[in-house]
Amino acid sequence: MLQTTRPVPLKQVSINDSYWSPYEKLVRQTVIPYQWDALNDRIPDAEPSYAIRNFRIAAGLEKGEYGGMVFQDSDLAKWLEAVGYWLTGHDDPELEQIADAAIDLVGQAQQEDGYLGTFFTIKEPGKRWTNLHDCHELYCAGHMMEAAVAYYKGTGKRKLLDIMCRFADHIDDTFGPEPGKIQGYDGHQEIELALVKLYQVTGNEKYLKLSQFFIDERGKAPNFLVQEWESRGRTSHWAQGITGKPNVEYNQAHLPVREQKAATGHAVRAVYMYTAMADLAAQNGDQSLLDACRTLWDNMVSRQMYITGGIGSTHHGEAFSFDYDLPNDTVYAETCASIGLIFFAHRMLQIEPDGQYADVLERALYNNVVGSMSSDGKHFFYVNPLEVWPQASEKNPGLHHVKPIRQKWFACSCCPPNLARLLTSLGEYIYSSSDNAVYTHLYMGSQAQIDVGGASVGLKQETNYPWDGEVKLTLALEEAKRFKLALRIPAWCEGAAIRINGESKQEELVMEKGYAVVELNWQDGDVIQLTLPLEVQIIEANPQVRANAGKAALQRGPVVYCLEEADNGSVLASVSVSTETEFKARFDGELLGGGIVIEGEGYKDSDSGWQGGELYRPIRRQAGRIALRAIPYSMWGNRGKGEMTVWFRTRSS
Amino acid sequence: MLQTTRPVPLKQVSINDSYWSPYEKLVRQTVIPYQWDALNDRIPDAEPSYAIRNFRIAAGLEKGEYGGMVFQDSDLAKWLEAVGYWLTGHDDPELEQIADAAIDLVGQAQQEDGYLGTFFTIKEPGKRWTNLHDCHELYCAGHMMEAAVAYYKGTGKRKLLDIMCRFADHIDDTFGPEPGKIQGYDGHQEIELALVKLYQVTGNEKYLKLSQFFIDERGKAPNFLVQEWESRGRTSHWAQGITGKPNVEYNQAHLPVREQKAATGHAVRAVYMYTAMADLAAQNGDQSLLDACRTLWDNMVSRQMYITGGIGSTHHGEAFSFDYDLPNDTVYAETCASIGLIFFAHRMLQIEPDGQYADVLERALYNNVVGSMSSDGKHFFYVNPLEVWPQASEKNPGLHHVKPIRQKWFACSCCPPNLARLLTSLGEYIYSSSDNAVYTHLYMGSQAQIDVGGASVGLKQETNYPWDGEVKLTLALEEAKRFKLALRIPAWCEGAAIRINGESKQEELVMEKGYAVVELNWQDGDVIQLTLPLEVQIIEANPQVRANAGKAALQRGPVVYCLEEADNGSVLASVSVSTETEFKARFDGELLGGGIVIEGEGYKDSDSGWQGGELYRPIRRQAGRIALRAIPYSMWGNRGKGEMTVWFRTRSS
Repeated sequence: MLQTTRPVPLKQVSINDSYWSPYEKLVRQTVIPYQWDALNDRIPDAEPSYAIRNFRIAAGLEKGEYGGMVFQDSDLAKWLEAVGYWLTGHDDPELEQIADAAIDLVGQAQQEDGYLGTFFTIKEPGKRWTNLHDCHELYCAGHMMEAAVAYYKGTGKRKLLDIMCRFADHIDDTFGPEPGKIQGYDGHQEIELALVKLYQVTGNEKYLKLSQFFIDERGKAPNFLVQEWESRGRTSHWAQGITGKPNVEYNQAHLPVREQKAATGHAVRAVYMYTAMADLAAQNGDQSLLDACRTLWDNMVSRQMYITGGIGSTHHGEAFSFDYDLPNDTVYAETCASIGLIFFAHRMLQIEPDGQYADVLERALYNNVVGSMSSDGKHFFYVNPLEVWPQASEKNPGLHHVKPIRQKWFACSCCPPNLARLLTSLGEYIYSSSDNAVYTHLYMGSQAQIDVGGASVGLKQETNYPWDGEVKLTLALEEAKRFKLALRIPAWCEGAAIRINGESKQEELVMEKGYAVVELNWQDGDVIQLTLPLEVQIIEANPQVRANAGKAALQRGPVVYCLEEADNGSVLASVSVSTETEFKARFDGELLGGGIVIEGEGYKDSDSGWQGGELYRPIRRQAGRIALRAIPYSMWGNRGKGEMTVWFRTRSS
Repeated sequence: MLQTTRPVPLKQVSINDSYWSPYEKLVRQTVIPYQWDALNDRIPDAEPSYAIRNFRIAAGLEKGEYGGMVFQDSDLAKWLEAVGYWLTGHDDPELEQIADAAIDLVGQAQQEDGYLGTFFTIKEPGKRWTNLHDCHELYCAGHMMEAAVAYYKGTGKRKLLDIMCRFADHIDDTFGPEPGKIQGYDGHQEIELALVKLYQVTGNEKYLKLSQFFIDERGKAPNFLVQEWESRGRTSHWAQGITGKPNVEYNQAHLPVREQKAATGHAVRAVYMYTAMADLAAQNGDQSLLDACRTLWDNMVSRQMYITGGIGSTHHGEAFSFDYDLPNDTVYAETCASIGLIFFAHRMLQIEPDGQYADVLERALYNNVVGSMSSDGKHFFYVNPLEVWPQASEKNPGLHHVKPIRQKWFACSCCPPNLARLLTSLGEYIYSSSDNAVYTHLYMGSQAQIDVGGASVGLKQETNYPWDGEVKLTLALEEAKRFKLALRIPAWCEGAAIRINGESKQEELVMEKGYAVVELNWQDGDVIQLTLPLEVQIIEANPQVRANAGKAALQRGPVVYCLEEADNGSVLASVSVSTETEFKARFDGELLGGGIVIEGEGYKDSDSGWQGGELYRPIRRQAGRIALRAIPYSMWGNRGKGEMTVWFRTRSS
C-alpha cells in the first residue's frame, strides 16, 4: 500500500453548509427526481433518454427497439449511484423504493450467464465483446459496479452488488491473460476504477487483479483495439461501411500506460484511467504506476488545464489537444472531465497529502463543475466555455458546441447524472485520516466522525467559505488524544493564521506540502480557528498560453470570476482593466441565491466614429471609464443569453 | 446598359512592372507547366489530379475509372483559360500546341448531343442533371466556357468556343421556363457569369437569357434543390445512404437573389453569383439586381472581410459566418473566394467607377491572393490565415485546415489554377474607359491602347508601386483630344498630388468617388505624375470585431504586414506595440525577391519566473523592449514553419 491516508467514509460525514447545503437540497429535491423523469422519458421537449425503457425491453417487460446511445445504461447507473450516496446520509424511503424497483429491473435485465447490457441484449445479441472500441460494454459495467458499491454502502442492500459481482465474474471469465480469454480492454476506461471499488467492498482479489490486467494490457503492441477493428472487418459502430484505422491515442491506448508522458485523447477516458492507475498504485504499492500518475498529473495541471479547472480543449473528440493550447472560445472543458479530474486528484491526495491535489480539486469543483448546473437544477452545461458570444455559438459552426445557456438534457447525457453523483458524495472529499493525523482538504460546514489510530474524533467545521475565509473547527473526543491536525492552506492564500482556543499558534505550526500541521494532545472541545485571507487576485496565465496573452482574470479564494453582458454590456472584448485596479468584493444577496461579486473600475473602448460601417481605419482608439462588475464563473449564464468572458484585456500602466 | 465604363481588352494592355512582371514570368515559366504536370498526374508525392486522364477515358482513348473530385474537369478549364490569357499578349507556339491538343481532347470527350462532362460520361452515364446540388455539372461547363472565350480572344481559334456553344445550346435545350425543361440551377454558381461572357463574344442573346433564367430562378419557392433531393430519393453525392435536407443557404438559394441582404453560405459560390448578378444588371439595365449587388457588396466588405481581403471566416462549408465574426486563427479566407471578390469588384467598377470597388480589389489582390502562392510558384495556400501557431495546426483538429506552409497540390485543387488565370489576365483590371474618360484603377507599370470616344489613346504607366507611390503616366495621341483622365486615389492615401507636364494641378483636379479627375485637351506626350504618399499606418478594426479587440495591424499603401517568428521569435502573442511607435519602412533586397519591410520598437512580455511550470499566478507581467520587423503578408510562410500574426496587441500609453 502506497496510501498515506484514507478518506473518511461518507456515512461518517454530514454537510451543513451555507454554500453546499442548498446544492444538496437541489440535488435531492430537483436533480434526482428530474433525472428520474428524464430516464423515464418524461421531460417535455427534451430528447428522450430511453434508459429505463431499454432495461424494460431487455427484461422482457416491454416490446420495442433499443433507443439512445450505446452507453445509455450508464445514465441509470450514475443515477443509482447518486441515490446510493444520498441514502448514505438520509432516510428517504420514498426514493429508496423507486431505486429498489429500478435495481429489480436491472436484475431482470441481467442474462443467465451474468451478462448485463441492454444494447447487446436487445439489438445485437450475437455480438457481445466484438466492438470494445466503440460500444462501451465494460464502461457501462463499471458505472453499474460503482452504483452497486454506493448503494450497498448507503443502504446495506446487497442486491445490486450481487448482480454486479455476477457480472464481474462473467467479465473475469471473458477477459484475462489466460488462453481462450480476450486479451483486451474497453475503448472507454471506467471499469478499471470500478473494479477497485468492488474489490474494496467485497475483498475479492480477483476484481483487483482484473483491473490491473486491463491497465497493464492497455497500449501494448500489437494494439488490441486495432486488431479488434481488423477482425471485425474494419467497421465502426459510429459510421457506415469500412472505416479508417482507429486513432488509439484517443483511447489512451497508443502506449503502455507507464510510458505515457502527456495527457492526450478523450479527456474523460483519460482521467478515469488515471484515477484507476492511482487506485492500483496505492493498493498494490506499484511505484512505476505512481510515477506515471505523477507525470500525467503534472502535464495536465501545469500545461493543459483551464483556470476554471476545465480540461480537454477541443470538441473534436472531446479531447486534450497539446501543451498550452487553451482557447477560451472553441474550448470543450466537459463537465464530466472535470469531475474525473476531481476523482484523480482525490486518489492522489490519499497517496500523498499534497496541497496541489486539493488545490486543483477545489478549482474544478467551485468553478467548472458547479457552474455546469443552473440554479434551478434542471439545466446543464456539457461544455463549459471561458468566453461566449451567443451569436457566434449560433452562426459559426465551429462554435455550435458552445451553448450560451444551459440545456435541458442531452442525447448523450453523461454530465448531469455525473454531477449528481459527485454532489451527493461530496462529504467524502473533505477529510482524510491516517493512524496519527487528520487532514482537512476542503472547507465546508460539516460534522464528521473520523478514525485516528483507533480513536474516533468528532470534528465540527463551521464556515461561510468560499465567500468568507474564517473556518472554525471544534473537536469532540471521548478522551484526550495526541495526533496531527493538518489544515490545507490553499496555494492562492497568503497570510493564513491559526488560533487554537483563541490563541495564535503560528509558531507551533509546521507547513508540510501545502498543509499547516499542528501536533498536540487534543482535548474534547478544543477550538481551532483558521483564517484564510480572501483577497481579490488579478491572475495572469503563462505566456505560452497564447489565448490569454495580455489578459487577466479575477479570482478570490478558489472562486474564478467572469464578466457578463448582463452587468457590463456588450462588447465585452472592448473592456480593459488596469492591473493596478483596486477591486472590491461585496456580498450581493440578490444574485442567484447570493454570492460575492467583485466591483471596480475598468475601461471600455469607445465605438464612436464607427457608425459609418467601415471595418478598418488608422488607429484612434480611445477608452472611457466604466464600472465593472464580475460574478462567480459558476453563476454565469443564468440571466439570459449574453456575452461572457473570464479573461479580459489588461492595460499597461 | 447600366455600365458606365468598359474594361480595356487584355490584348490592348501589356504589363511591364517590377512587382508584377516577375509574377507573370513565374506563371508562364513555372505555374503553367507545373499545373500542366499536375493535371497529368506527374507531380511526385502530390495527390494525383486525374483531370487529363478523365478526359482521355471519356474520349475513349484510355480505359479506366473516373478519378478525383466530381468537378475535376474545371481544373483543366481554368488552366486553359490561363493559357488563353497568356497567349493574348505573347507568342508562345510551344504552349499553344499543348493547349490545342488539350482542346482537341476536350472535343473528343464531348458527346454526340453536345454534353460535356467526364464524370457523368464515364461514371454515371444515365444520371446527368439529376444531382445539380452536388455534382457541379453546370459549374464545370461554366469554367470551360470561360476558357473558350479566353482562348478565342487570345488566339482567334474557335474550336473550344464552338465546342462550348454546342454544349451551351444543349444546356439551353435542357434548362428553362418552358414545359419539359428543368426549372433549376446549379448547386455551385459559375455558369451564370460564363454565359454572359459567351454572349458577349458570340452576340447570341440566348446565352444571356439563360444566365438571367438561372439567376432569376434561384431561391424561388418551392426550392428546386430541395425538390431535386426529394426526387433523387434524398441521397447525396458526398455521403452514403439517406441524407438530411440540404441547407440551401449554403448555395445562396434560400431566397430569391434580389431578397438576399447578407453574404452567406459558401464564399466562392456567393461571389461568383454576385459577379453574374452585376454582369446581368449591367447588360440588362436591371436596377433591382444592381440594388441587390450593392446591398450584398456593402454587407460583405463592411462586415465580413478580413483586412487581407479574405472572405469566408469558417472552414465549415468554406463559408461566411455572420457580421463581424472574423477570427484570425480558425479563419478560412480561401484563395478562390478572394479571386471571386476581385471579379465582383471589377464588375461593379464598370457599372460605376467608385474607388471603394478598386480599393477592395487591390486589398484582395496584394494580400490574400498574391500571398497564396509561394515564391517558387509551386506551392499554394488554399486557406489564408491571419494568425498561425504551427503546433496548433498540427495538434488541434479545429485548426487542421490552417496550413503553416504552402502545399504542393490539393485533392480539391481549385485555387492554384484560379490564381493562374487571374495573374495572366491582370492587364484587364488596370484601366477602363468610356466615351469621354479614361480610368486608371490600379498602379502597375504597363502600356495600354485605350479607346476613348472613337480615338485610341496610348497610355504608358511607370511606377514601383506598391513599394513606392510615384506613378508616371505618358500619353500617346495621334491628335490632341479632350477627355477626362481619372486616377484612383486609394482610400488609405492622404495628400495625393498630381503634376501635369511638371506643373502642380491640384486646383484643376476634381475628386469624384475616389478618383481624381482632370479634364483637359490632352496632347501627345503629355506626362501626368501622381504621388501617393505611402506612410506606415497602424490600423484598428471595428470594435464589433471581437477577434481584434485591443489589437492593431500594419499597412503601407495597399500592403498589409505581418509579424513572423523568423524575425521576431516566439511567442508572437507576447508582442505588444505602442500606438505612438514610429515605424520605418525600408527596402530589403534580401527578402524573397525584395520588398519593403517595416521596422520599429515593440515590447515583449517577459517569460521569466514561469520556468517552474505553473499555469496561473497573480499578475506581475513585465514587458521588455524588442526590435520588431514586419514583412508583407503576401510573403509569409516562405521561410519555414513558424508563428505568424497580422494583428498584434497594442499598449495603451
